[in-house]
Amino acid sequence: MDSNDQAYMARALELARKGIYSTHPNPRVGCVIVRGGQIVGEGWHVRAGEPHAEVHALRQAGNLARGATAYVTLEPCSHHGRTPPCADALVTAGVARVVAAMQDPNPQVAGRGLKRLADAGIDVQSGVLEADARALNVGFIKRMEQGLPFVRVKLAMSLDGRTAMASGESQWITGPEARAAVQRLRARSSVVLTGADTVLADGARLTVRPDELGLNAELTALALSRPPLRVLVDGRLRVPLDAPFFQAGPALVATCAAVESGEPFKAAGHELLCVPGMDGQVDLRQLLRELAARGASEVLVEAGPRLAGAFASAGLVDEYQLFVAAKFLGSSARPLLDWPLARMAEAPELKILEMRAVGDDWRVIAVPRRDS
Amino acid sequence: MDSNDQAYMARALELARKGIYSTHPNPRVGCVIVRGGQIVGEGWHVRAGEPHAEVHALRQAGNLARGATAYVTLEPCSHHGRTPPCADALVTAGVARVVAAMQDPNPQVAGRGLKRLADAGIDVQSGVLEADARALNVGFIKRMEQGLPFVRVKLAMSLDGRTAMASGESQWITGPEARAAVQRLRARSSVVLTGADTVLADGARLTVRPDELGLNAELTALALSRPPLRVLVDGRLRVPLDAPFFQAGPALVATCAAVESGEPFKAAGHELLCVPGMDGQVDLRQLLRELAARGASEVLVEAGPRLAGAFASAGLVDEYQLFVAAKFLGSSARPLLDWPLARMAEAPELKILEMRAVGDDWRVIAVPRRDS
Repeated sequence: MDSNDQAYMARALELARKGIYSTHPNPRVGCVIVRGGQIVGEGWHVRAGEPHAEVHALRQAGNLARGATAYVTLEPCSHHGRTPPCADALVTAGVARVVAAMQDPNPQVAGRGLKRLADAGIDVQSGVLEADARALNVGFIKRMEQGLPFVRVKLAMSLDGRTAMASGESQWITGPEARAAVQRLRARSSVVLTGADTVLADGARLTVRPDELGLNAELTALALSRPPLRVLVDGRLRVPLDAPFFQAGPALVATCAAVESGEPFKAAGHELLCVPGMDGQVDLRQLLRELAARGASEVLVEAGPRLAGAFASAGLVDEYQLFVAAKFLGSSARPLLDWPLARMAEAPELKILEMRAVGDDWRVIAVPRRDS
Repeated sequence: MDSNDQAYMARALELARKGIYSTHPNPRVGCVIVRGGQIVGEGWHVRAGEPHAEVHALRQAGNLARGATAYVTLEPCSHHGRTPPCADALVTAGVARVVAAMQDPNPQVAGRGLKRLADAGIDVQSGVLEADARALNVGFIKRMEQGLPFVRVKLAMSLDGRTAMASGESQWITGPEARAAVQRLRARSSVVLTGADTVLADGARLTVRPDELGLNAELTALALSRPPLRVLVDGRLRVPLDAPFFQAGPALVATCAAVESGEPFKAAGHELLCVPGMDGQVDLRQLLRELAARGASEVLVEAGPRLAGAFASAGLVDEYQLFVAAKFLGSSARPLLDWPLARMAEAPELKILEMRAVGDDWRVIAVPRRDS
């Protein structure tokens, strides 16, 4: 593998990352066009319906694209969507070589874009910095491959693994850095999902607040231009319409309740999604399938131990983000997850990817070990 | 502050650290003698009863000590202990300048060694890299200043803060790196302390095992030459003499039981320490005072949630070392500490000093915030 290829692809990935808050439901994609060792065009996909990364880069390169190499973080599209196929644009522009970080994850299209380029006599390569490219679009890829979104569960806990006192008291003392990190997790997600317990107990709104994002003006504006869909799981429609969650804007309520009892929610501008479930509990896997069908790539679960535990015990969690406050809440306080296990053999194995200080708090990122 | 002074003191501290496993009950001390920009003598205190660091360094320097500067990590002693006063030795050798990292922590002697040197016309300075010097002898300093040892509590937990299943099942899966780290914590301690629950349930012996220390031959030999005192807190003398803990060698049993019931333990070579307590529970503060009076500077508590929780709730813990395994044990598993708290205001604040990967596990070092 050519180290120049890696360097240009790294730049393309850097560009792609600028779309982290805005490309939903599309993937984040960046493109760099290089001729004679010089970057002659750069582009990244900003938001759905607008030009793809390749188009921006080709425009900037102009005639210099002829005979150049194009680096793209995702295989160029070969189909007519809201914009014409990028593969065709690259052929027309006369590029000599296309390097992709990865193929299109959609099994029905994977490789077609590259084949179209190769058929036109373009030198084609794929797999440069593929791991980084996959990480950037982990949700999009999972949705394409499995019809499910990537589920990230955010939890705040004490060092002894507790989330609140037994009484429910939980005035959480996380610093501004941890709050900003959570805000950025919300902003990058397609969906922020919570449960009735959290909304009732904490008056949670789960909105993205520009002043807490800790981002520059450009990224803040992008984040606000495409806020995540707020989803409330409320099997029995316990949360009243005057709750701050509903007052904060239109939301989607996933429920098992009869259609007619949801009419007031619809009238108030919210959407109702009826998901069959048992004992008044929404079937979470089914809900995730519905959300994926609506284009949700990354779902952030910000819920209490009950709903978070339900996602966990159903094997639906792809990543835990634990914000750890440096205190003990003691042995009678509430658990991290309502997930009783009897035997050690049932205990789910995780892989801790990162433990890092975030202001006075610490962030632990852990993923389930699928092989265990 | 002279940067050369710092560099030479850093070297003296490096030497002092070689004694981390062997100087008990003495502090770890290193010494460097410098003349004309050259190190002409180095020494460190190996074990009690043997020469102090200054003596080793002066011997190596010989006549070159005349007019030299001596760097010592602790104020030179001015009293006759098992060895003659080092202050006198420095005067006799004719050193021109003495730089100490810190004064003797014993309030009854602090400054006397330096004064003796100054009275003899030697240029004297103190406070170079003092924080590092204090950290190295944190237990010795606390014992001198407060008559109590530094108490380090080691706990192994899952990511959700649990130590074992509700049934007691706890086949802990820590990797060799975490085991080695625990072995080194034991080896550096004056006392390794546990409770009857742990000894009965796990067959714990709490010995230092040379092959698991992960140290070089020199340090391993030093560690084995001065094993920590193993202390069992057993208020009611529930642990039988044929338990592995007692079979592993002589130990000290702290109990509230009547003297006569302890006779078999004494006959088997163990020591019995009667500590008054309530409800058959040993008074832990009193026990720590007794251990300090016997020269214990660092006590490692390796106990279950009950005894560890008792130390914690009594405010007797100076440092937590949490070994975190990347798994969830679930909400019915046993807590980290048996320490029920009703209100958030009672929740003890900690400061997390470090979170670091140790093999496949993670180590969290946290200390109570005394100001909270």
